[in-house]
Amino acid sequence: MSLLNEFDRRGLAETGQELHGFAADLYPICRSITGNGIRQTFESIGRRIPLRVTEVPSGTPVFDWIVPKEWNIRDAFIARPGGKRIVDFRCSNLHVMSYSTPVQATLSLSELKPHLASLPGHPDWIPYRTSYYEENWGFCLSHDQMLALQEGDYEVCIDSTLEDGHLTYGECYLPGRSTDEVLISCHSCHPSLANDNLSGITVATALAQLLSGQDLRYSYRFLCIPGTIGAITWLARNPEAARRIRHGLVLTCIGDAGGFHYKKSRRGDAEIDRAAAHVLRHYSESPEILEFSPYGYVERQYCSPGFNLAVGCLMRSVWGSFPEYHTSADNLNFVQPLQLAGSLRVCTAIMDVLENNRRYCSQNPCCEPQLGRRNLYRSTGGEGLGEETSARLWVLNFSDGEHSLLDIAERSGLPFASISDAAELLLEKGMLSLTEATTFDRSVAAQPRARF
Amino acid sequence: MSLLNEFDRRGLAETGQELHGFAADLYPICRSITGNGIRQTFESIGRRIPLRVTEVPSGTPVFDWIVPKEWNIRDAFIARPGGKRIVDFRCSNLHVMSYSTPVQATLSLSELKPHLASLPGHPDWIPYRTSYYEENWGFCLSHDQMLALQEGDYEVCIDSTLEDGHLTYGECYLPGRSTDEVLISCHSCHPSLANDNLSGITVATALAQLLSGQDLRYSYRFLCIPGTIGAITWLARNPEAARRIRHGLVLTCIGDAGGFHYKKSRRGDAEIDRAAAHVLRHYSESPEILEFSPYGYVERQYCSPGFNLAVGCLMRSVWGSFPEYHTSADNLNFVQPLQLAGSLRVCTAIMDVLENNRRYCSQNPCCEPQLGRRNLYRSTGGEGLGEETSARLWVLNFSDGEHSLLDIAERSGLPFASISDAAELLLEKGMLSLTEATTFDRSVAAQPRARF
Amino acid sequence: MSLLNEFDRRGLAETGQELHGFAADLYPICRSITGNGIRQTFESIGRRIPLRVTEVPSGTPVFDWIVPKEWNIRDAFIARPGGKRIVDFRCSNLHVMSYSTPVQATLSLSELKPHLASLPGHPDWIPYRTSYYEENWGFCLSHDQMLALQEGDYEVCIDSTLEDGHLTYGECYLPGRSTDEVLISCHSCHPSLANDNLSGITVATALAQLLSGQDLRYSYRFLCIPGTIGAITWLARNPEAARRIRHGLVLTCIGDAGGFHYKKSRRGDAEIDRAAAHVLRHYSESPEILEFSPYGYVERQYCSPGFNLAVGCLMRSVWGSFPEYHTSADNLNFVQPLQLAGSLRVCTAIMDVLENNRRYCSQNPCCEPQLGRRNLYRSTGGEGLGEETSARLWVLNFSDGEHSLLDIAERSGLPFASISDAAELLLEKGMLSLTEATTFDRSVAAQPRARF
Repeated sequence: MSLLNEFDRRGLAETGQELHGFAADLYPICRSITGNGIRQTFESIGRRIPLRVTEVPSGTPVFDWIVPKEWNIRDAFIARPGGKRIVDFRCSNLHVMSYSTPVQATLSLSELKPHLASLPGHPDWIPYRTSYYEENWGFCLSHDQMLALQEGDYEVCIDSTLEDGHLTYGECYLPGRSTDEVLISCHSCHPSLANDNLSGITVATALAQLLSGQDLRYSYRFLCIPGTIGAITWLARNPEAARRIRHGLVLTCIGDAGGFHYKKSRRGDAEIDRAAAHVLRHYSESPEILEFSPYGYVERQYCSPGFNLAVGCLMRSVWGSFPEYHTSADNLNFVQPLQLAGSLRVCTAIMDVLENNRRYCSQNPCCEPQLGRRNLYRSTGGEGLGEETSARLWVLNFSDGEHSLLDIAERSGLPFASISDAAELLLEKGMLSLTEATTFDRSVAAQPRARF
Repeated sequence: MSLLNEFDRRGLAETGQELHGFAADLYPICRSITGNGIRQTFESIGRRIPLRVTEVPSGTPVFDWIVPKEWNIRDAFIARPGGKRIVDFRCSNLHVMSYSTPVQATLSLSELKPHLASLPGHPDWIPYRTSYYEENWGFCLSHDQMLALQEGDYEVCIDSTLEDGHLTYGECYLPGRSTDEVLISCHSCHPSLANDNLSGITVATALAQLLSGQDLRYSYRFLCIPGTIGAITWLARNPEAARRIRHGLVLTCIGDAGGFHYKKSRRGDAEIDRAAAHVLRHYSESPEILEFSPYGYVERQYCSPGFNLAVGCLMRSVWGSFPEYHTSADNLNFVQPLQLAGSLRVCTAIMDVLENNRRYCSQNPCCEPQLGRRNLYRSTGGEGLGEETSARLWVLNFSDGEHSLLDIAERSGLPFASISDAAELLLEKGMLSLTEATTFDRSVAAQPRARF
Repeated sequence: MSLLNEFDRRGLAETGQELHGFAADLYPICRSITGNGIRQTFESIGRRIPLRVTEVPSGTPVFDWIVPKEWNIRDAFIARPGGKRIVDFRCSNLHVMSYSTPVQATLSLSELKPHLASLPGHPDWIPYRTSYYEENWGFCLSHDQMLALQEGDYEVCIDSTLEDGHLTYGECYLPGRSTDEVLISCHSCHPSLANDNLSGITVATALAQLLSGQDLRYSYRFLCIPGTIGAITWLARNPEAARRIRHGLVLTCIGDAGGFHYKKSRRGDAEIDRAAAHVLRHYSESPEILEFSPYGYVERQYCSPGFNLAVGCLMRSVWGSFPEYHTSADNLNFVQPLQLAGSLRVCTAIMDVLENNRRYCSQNPCCEPQLGRRNLYRSTGGEGLGEETSARLWVLNFSDGEHSLLDIAERSGLPFASISDAAELLLEKGMLSLTEATTFDRSVAAQPRARF
């Protein structure tokens, strides 16, 4: 089975348009780590893939944390008393610091200023700020707006609520032949930011659509959760599902024009790490493979030592490394259709590796089998052996029950798809048999357990 | 014992002349994977070293293959009816595609053309072609000849036979103190091609002559066999000998002017791989060490997963990478005496490593022994320690029963010969003892068995 | 505990002056591998740190060696009969070859010449020569002095004794909480040479002073011994102490202006090797890490296969690689206060790693603990996470009982001190627990035993 073939049936442009259209639908919604913005987002996703939404009450202890109060906002502005709105939540939901407590006051400019944030280096961009765990309120505005503020009184209004409610997360589970799971995780806690949020959500949703209805080796779990606290909450409530995760990817910032970055899991040599590196090497230009570090996105939680899951993080530009990060410039122009589609293609190719990475035994281990009489030798003609014949020889020689197809792809320098196609054909011709033990069983057995 | 010292007693030039002379003797013979050309070649070899010739009947099943019919040829030509021969087997045996079925016909140029091959890029070279497993006939000619062919009828004659007979291979076995074997394999299936065939045959023969009558640690088996089917046939018929092979080298294309290439065994870290890399690093300029791949020469069969023998392949220029490959330009000028002799010298140095690579225990493990009072310290004078004293210190410090002399040579950066000489002297002086377990026992034990 | 903080309380300049002053005190003394020069040196050291002096009788067998006769010298000169001294031991003790037998003679220039050594390349430097194991006498002089010698008779006097006596070494033992030891070794056998001897002695003495009275994890043994025979003698007489050595450093040539060189222990991956490499990478400019070789200083004896101790060698310029080596130009100008102090600082930082390199278990292994509510997140403010917060996250994520703090420092790229400070704080806050097995227990267990 090749998911990539499935993917490639549609044009990249068309797929990109659809991904971008979905991002555009979700863009205006004001999301935070809790609240109705997330629910509204999940409703949209739920119209595309089966999404089970879970509500966890505020105050629920989750490991070292506590599920926070739920925040909702209806409106917010700064205005001259009786005058026009100068800063208006209705123009951009970034104008209000996320988790701002309700305010209704008239303040002098000097009283107001400590609650204002702007970016002098990018005077027409609005920054994005949050204060989840310290009660506070604030406005974000462009530096041009900031400079235009004159001495005098201002009417300040944040029509928000911060009270006991729920933390909401969404899960899409696609059952496969095994209960072993592949986790695809994206965060859903950012408001109108396109790359740092929506790119992950839209690509993950489309990947789920692509996998849906396929005959899958693994079961797939798509998690759409608020950053940090969302992953912590899910892990605290789902220890058994967590234990079934064999491979995982966090998807974030995959819509911009940057080259791919893959951040390895804490294990560093997990199958997902090798699969992602292999795919990026063959399907993208000058990708960069980064070592694990304990900061970044939700992979920090999946890779905490008590879980140590084989979960890496796929990005184009790395969070914090591009100027548009956490500003209003991370908008629908920053994220382009073909970039989203390219990211989905890479994800699909990685899933192909996971789905097809098995170990085989050659039925002719002693000397080469005679490919010629089976019409398997140089069928494509041309100079040299050709990739097809070459892939067959590699698969036959290294199918000793020890080497996985990914091992063979790495050793041969050929793309996994060629190796996998060769194996499929040779299996069909009766020249290979599948070994019973699957790759991940070993890697799990080989994994040193943390001692707690 | 140093085979290299033995080798160096004669001048390189003289050795080269002898090697080249032998190649010149064998050059005119029309060899193929079966037939009388091979037998005639083996008679020549047999006058230099004891060669046991084996004949395997056509039709014998050997693993996935069947020993083919035997091919012999007496004459072949293309001529204008009643005219002079235009293409004449008597001028070059490359003119006839190997395994061509008999033909006696008059054909128009357009009927003839599908049976002709030439090299437009090298208009005065004759290509070399074969059709072992598909019955066919053909002529190879220079492109100049091709262009000179005018419309009209041609008399075409191939006076060959392709019928049940035998596949012939030759073996020279030199018994050593152990029944563990070193395999030296070269192919004997090419007609008048000097580098791609005769270089291997002549160097292997000379190496056998050099080893003959020496007190050898290992037993040596020299195999002179047709490519692919020859190795498959030998392996199918000699499973027990195959099991005794500890180290092996395929020799091919070692007469040209190129730098050395060593292609590693499938294991990649076998003692032969390390020995060859070490020797090339110290005894040749800018050698290249290549990873194993499942195409090339007969190493493909020795390294098939059911055998997985520690057999690498020593070349100068790599097959297919030089324009003269498989053309009439691979002739006796392309292969020079000093190049052949240099290759034999490298082979000899590799055998020295295999013969002498042992592990010792220092009899003075606690602190350095006092070399001065034994007259072993800086005996050569000069600035610094000198390589001799240095080699002694390395051997003494690392002779802990764990490090082999090759380990010590690699770690010290000194040539194996210096380390080996030091060990011999220190053993003589009673400062070392030989450990019982020999190196290869461990490497064999450590070798994961293919699961079939 | 941070020894480096302790060290840094005093200015580097002041520390340097003290080190250099001590070197200046010891400089005039004529030391050799035995004799009163060593005793006088130990008296000076003993006024700074508790030094136990051991006298081993000449003739005592020590492994493959025998403790030599004791050498003492009162005076020596070359003069014209009745004339002024031309070469005078009282001007420089380098003028007499160490271990010169007594001489009182009148010799012609040609009789004298075989006993003279000079350096034509550096005509105003006096070379340093010895003849410990072959009875002989000689003078070393500047090449200018050599050229000035005219034909004629010379009065030659070496007022030395070479007779049964003792070999003297000094030990300073600082007990710690564990009887496992750290060895600091320097050689004391060189006369007026500043870098190649006194730099090691003065830095080792100052390190002992710094450690003295501290609450130490390890016990520390400072050895001040003659080269080669001294280390052999100590090892032969102290097998049990040797067995307790977990980590060790030979200090030599650490006063010159060169960049640091660390020569690894024979093991190559011992904790001291990693600690020294880490510290040099973070605390010095372009350090070089050298592989072990069986020549150099006393590390050769500690790293002989029967001991195979984890002892490396810290140098600035490598012995033999600088022109001043073993000449009168290795004087008190060649060794500068700040260079000595910088070396002491590096040694201190290495000891900090050894003292604090432990493995911990996070008390919150499942998901990140909430640093914010403990006021542990980004306490220093500014852009990005900051090294402090980052170090805490690294320690928490990798404190799984498997990774030592040095592992974490290496993996994070952060200096050990930051990682260690973070661990100390987190331990204090109850967020870590110490694992029982300490690092070195494992590394010892993992160490293959030499088989003798």
